[in-house]
Amino acid sequence: MNIDQLCVNTVRMLAVEAVEKAKSGHPGMPLGAAPMAYTLWAKVMNHNGKNPYWINRDRFVLSAGHGSMLLYSLLHLFDYGLTIDDLKNFRQLDSLTPGHPEYGHTKGVEATTGPLGQGISMAVGMAMAEAHLSKIFNRDKYNVIDHYTYVIAGDGDLMEGVSNEASSLAGTLKLGKLIVLYDSNSISIEGSTKIAFTENVRKRYEALGWETLYVEDGNDIAAIEKAILQAKKNLSQPTLIEIRTHIGYGTEKEDSASAHGEPLGEHNIEVLKKNLNWNYQPFEVPEEVKNHLKEVCDNLANKEKEWNEMYKKYMDDYPELAKELKAWFNKDIPIDYLDSDDFWSFEKDLSTREASGILINRLADVIPNFIGGSADLAPSTKTYMKNRKDFSHEDYTGSNIHFGVREHAMGAILNGLSLHGGVRPFGATFFVFSDYMKPAMRLSSMMKQPVTYVLTHDSIGVGEDGPTHQPIEQLTVFRAQPNFIAFRPCDARETAAGWYTAIKSTETPVGLVLSRQTLPLLNGTGKDALKGGYILRKETKKLKLILMASGSEVNLIYKASELLEEKGIGTRVVSMPSFELFEMQEDDYKEKVLPSNVRARIAVEAGSSLSWYKYVGLDGRVISIDSFGASAPADKLFDKFGLNIENIVEKALELVK
Amino acid sequence: MNIDQLCVNTVRMLAVEAVEKAKSGHPGMPLGAAPMAYTLWAKVMNHNGKNPYWINRDRFVLSAGHGSMLLYSLLHLFDYGLTIDDLKNFRQLDSLTPGHPEYGHTKGVEATTGPLGQGISMAVGMAMAEAHLSKIFNRDKYNVIDHYTYVIAGDGDLMEGVSNEASSLAGTLKLGKLIVLYDSNSISIEGSTKIAFTENVRKRYEALGWETLYVEDGNDIAAIEKAILQAKKNLSQPTLIEIRTHIGYGTEKEDSASAHGEPLGEHNIEVLKKNLNWNYQPFEVPEEVKNHLKEVCDNLANKEKEWNEMYKKYMDDYPELAKELKAWFNKDIPIDYLDSDDFWSFEKDLSTREASGILINRLADVIPNFIGGSADLAPSTKTYMKNRKDFSHEDYTGSNIHFGVREHAMGAILNGLSLHGGVRPFGATFFVFSDYMKPAMRLSSMMKQPVTYVLTHDSIGVGEDGPTHQPIEQLTVFRAQPNFIAFRPCDARETAAGWYTAIKSTETPVGLVLSRQTLPLLNGTGKDALKGGYILRKETKKLKLILMASGSEVNLIYKASELLEEKGIGTRVVSMPSFELFEMQEDDYKEKVLPSNVRARIAVEAGSSLSWYKYVGLDGRVISIDSFGASAPADKLFDKFGLNIENIVEKALELVK
Repeated sequence: MNIDQLCVNTVRMLAVEAVEKAKSGHPGMPLGAAPMAYTLWAKVMNHNGKNPYWINRDRFVLSAGHGSMLLYSLLHLFDYGLTIDDLKNFRQLDSLTPGHPEYGHTKGVEATTGPLGQGISMAVGMAMAEAHLSKIFNRDKYNVIDHYTYVIAGDGDLMEGVSNEASSLAGTLKLGKLIVLYDSNSISIEGSTKIAFTENVRKRYEALGWETLYVEDGNDIAAIEKAILQAKKNLSQPTLIEIRTHIGYGTEKEDSASAHGEPLGEHNIEVLKKNLNWNYQPFEVPEEVKNHLKEVCDNLANKEKEWNEMYKKYMDDYPELAKELKAWFNKDIPIDYLDSDDFWSFEKDLSTREASGILINRLADVIPNFIGGSADLAPSTKTYMKNRKDFSHEDYTGSNIHFGVREHAMGAILNGLSLHGGVRPFGATFFVFSDYMKPAMRLSSMMKQPVTYVLTHDSIGVGEDGPTHQPIEQLTVFRAQPNFIAFRPCDARETAAGWYTAIKSTETPVGLVLSRQTLPLLNGTGKDALKGGYILRKETKKLKLILMASGSEVNLIYKASELLEEKGIGTRVVSMPSFELFEMQEDDYKEKVLPSNVRARIAVEAGSSLSWYKYVGLDGRVISIDSFGASAPADKLFDKFGLNIENIVEKALELVK
Repeated sequence: MNIDQLCVNTVRMLAVEAVEKAKSGHPGMPLGAAPMAYTLWAKVMNHNGKNPYWINRDRFVLSAGHGSMLLYSLLHLFDYGLTIDDLKNFRQLDSLTPGHPEYGHTKGVEATTGPLGQGISMAVGMAMAEAHLSKIFNRDKYNVIDHYTYVIAGDGDLMEGVSNEASSLAGTLKLGKLIVLYDSNSISIEGSTKIAFTENVRKRYEALGWETLYVEDGNDIAAIEKAILQAKKNLSQPTLIEIRTHIGYGTEKEDSASAHGEPLGEHNIEVLKKNLNWNYQPFEVPEEVKNHLKEVCDNLANKEKEWNEMYKKYMDDYPELAKELKAWFNKDIPIDYLDSDDFWSFEKDLSTREASGILINRLADVIPNFIGGSADLAPSTKTYMKNRKDFSHEDYTGSNIHFGVREHAMGAILNGLSLHGGVRPFGATFFVFSDYMKPAMRLSSMMKQPVTYVLTHDSIGVGEDGPTHQPIEQLTVFRAQPNFIAFRPCDARETAAGWYTAIKSTETPVGLVLSRQTLPLLNGTGKDALKGGYILRKETKKLKLILMASGSEVNLIYKASELLEEKGIGTRVVSMPSFELFEMQEDDYKEKVLPSNVRARIAVEAGSSLSWYKYVGLDGRVISIDSFGASAPADKLFDKFGLNIENIVEKALELVK
């Protein structure tokens, strides 16, 4: 047996043995896809297990994340620091080898995958980052950023709509250094793909503007390598290489759905060993494999060394650029500017989307690696950077991205941009359409990526477009999502606090929830909003009632409080742009803002009531909208739904009675 | 000018005049697409404005819902009951002509559209319903169900991933009676589609197994009619007809994004009138048009009459079938069976997904129009109906649907099946992947469609698959969504209550949130669960503490309550499978279950805490998971996150101290 074949079989055996030991996992995919993965890692990719953070490494995304043991086996064999014991702890509590690959948890995992379609779509973002950075930073003889992005994707990935969205954009953008290996095994969980997936995938990708190639025998390493090399040569189109494989290869479950998601069982392990001519102990890596891969890894380490030498010269020849590059990857932020009066100043009342648009343009002047755009709503979301060019295949140095009507791909691409490093991404759509990109936004949170989501048209304030365009439950959704900061400012200055939070965030995505309609600048707004909740207007009499709200409703409680105070009721106004930031404050601050003994509390929000009971309790009250909205001019809707000063005052008087 | 042209121009003028009067709306799309829409409605479709509920009408879905005035103009002209005054009230409070078409609000609107991609995907469900019902009910000479489903879709619809998912399935299923008119105007909000959408759409659809046709001149009614007639002839493939149009046709904004989403303005209305040679008052319908369309409508009404006559004979020749067909469309439910012991009985402890699987099969025996399936997870979601065949192009009488790995399209297709009528649809996936189909689930709620969502693997109980597969915030999401019932049962009998609720529901979608792991049958569960929250175990001493939970955590609080009672603390156990059902109960019932004066309350749920403060208030406590989960065996995870009896008892003792 040649050494490559032995290596491939080692990958296979480690994978199935780990699944067997865990009594849980997916052995079928690694058995079929091991040859393509090994070919990539050993013969094609530039990477170095000893420095998985090398900025010019080729990126690899296992979009079919359920095949995690394929990746873990490779990470072990290519010296990324995973030990055999780690493999033996596959899927166990606190192990480095969780059920699906988790970014930030296991070195060498470039993206958290498992939810299908996300990996390939994030890879589009990575390839966009590479195209952008290479065009900006490379100089004659110095290709400091010059790498490919590789993906292994399965049938499930290609059935998911998000992958079509992202792939269509990749075609438009001619991302020639994106190469997807399609593990085509014609099996999904319910059986043959004939029952649900008879489309011609390669033809679809051709229609999307991709080059497509076909490898008939997924075990043919030479053919796989040849196809990848051909794909690499095409720099003006992304490439999909369909590689025909057999799920559960070498077992009696080969080509059947039962090979997918459960351990093979002792019998099939024996069958497999026999078919692979495998005569080693469980978890044993043959010496020849160790020796061969040592050599491979040394060569790979040398490639990084060559890059490092080139980079040293680049620093000499282009010291400013090199400094800039370093700053971009270090996520340096212009903290002085964020703290300056200029950043926080506005001349007039604005909708918070307009305020955000002004802030984005201010930030674009001081954050050179700021990049982003909208899912075909830039004129409405106010996210266009006027002094920047468009990001297009004709000019990858541009940083205004046109995502098209593809919210879900936008979310995934933002994750990919952020994971790649070197850029600071944001994306925008109407808040209600956050529903479309929720799976990607969840991954932003899980992967701790500080992506900024600009979510405008935040309530019935949308007006005439009606209930399909009016968020109701969405604020609650993102308040409940772990590691996400939802920020709904009440005026332009609070919007500055929102962007401040977003730019300073290092491990948490931030969603800025912004109004369509103009909101008055309120006395007292400003940096206090960074605490998430604060006393905007203090009671002038003995405190009897707390009014709280976010966004456009803060103005209503502010005015209501004046009327209530006139009636002798000591009323406090609490602006609460972000539950999450408020919860991060010390207990005594929170107690100061919302004293426990004051139980007459009213929250007002043009959305679902559910989340506010946390602050109003059993004795308070929420003035909210727990039905869908309606189509009419916005002011009429606020009255229809009782979101007006009169109703707040009336309810407040009832409550304090 | 020929009469067809005059009719088309009438549609155009009504649309732009209404937008102008509303000072809000989308004039560009109706100007470009009026000829194709008119051709469909006047020359192709079988429909009758006087009876929009005729079960065999051709279905029409305006997927590009922002072009609502196109549809409203047609509904007026084709005698669906919309008056000129209704058109004049476009986008006003409580009008019949909201910003986007709303199903159930305006007669003749077959689906709520606006969120792009949903309409075309729902239409796939409608075409599936037609294929199913026609194969089951038609007999020689009696094509009682025999209609087409037509869609007008724009660039935005075809950029959205959900439309690719649904279209791929439509290709696999060879839905020959689905015809999509693609309003190809090469413009989206940010400008030319060149910036984000350069793919070859027709080639993509060919790859998906569709027939594709092209009409070069979107104003050529004869060419459009010819193409549609050709499409109708192909009964083994759905057809996409790309029709090249010009957004804002006839104005100075033609072919520009500015024609899309704002009123044309007086000047351009004048330009348009001149170009169309239009010399009528605003909102005036020319007499010739009225006369012509009267004739067209009379002919259309006659077509329904012919069908009615045929149907009468069918009732004579096939009385049983006719009775059945009526029952299917009446949404008759087997209420006696739902109330029988058989439905509520289980012999052993089961996971609630297994209990659901048993219930689905019981229901399949008594609900002949039950139809559904899973997004490639049937073996895990336990949703396969054993005595039913698969729904496939070889046998449309089957009712087990294989949706493929396409959660989003599944949601939209379920909506389409339900909207079509005659069937009772359900769909299944892992609960965490509800994120993927949230936009469609929201439309289920908005359109009041009693779709059942079977959402299994409901918590960290998922175990080894890890955080990507473990829901945290999802229960909160659906508790916050208006008109949705989330139901998370604690054992098999409560699962019966969940399915009971789902089947009895007429206007509300229901999500059954089900465990992967086995849950013990608890004493006292059963029909009380239909109230959403109930006292599962009454305190034996003076009530001091209320423990509440849903799903798998009910067993934990049950056992904790026994220990607490042993320690002398009167402890009540409240099972709360559904907040929404509980909220529908009378106030005195709610007060009986959760007496206001008892403030020592603990809620336990393996998910986000946020929604529970509504019931525990400021003095209670929630034992929950407000981070992402982890990969490990499930029992280890429950301990890791403090979801165990010991922790509940400890926290309870702290609280009552």
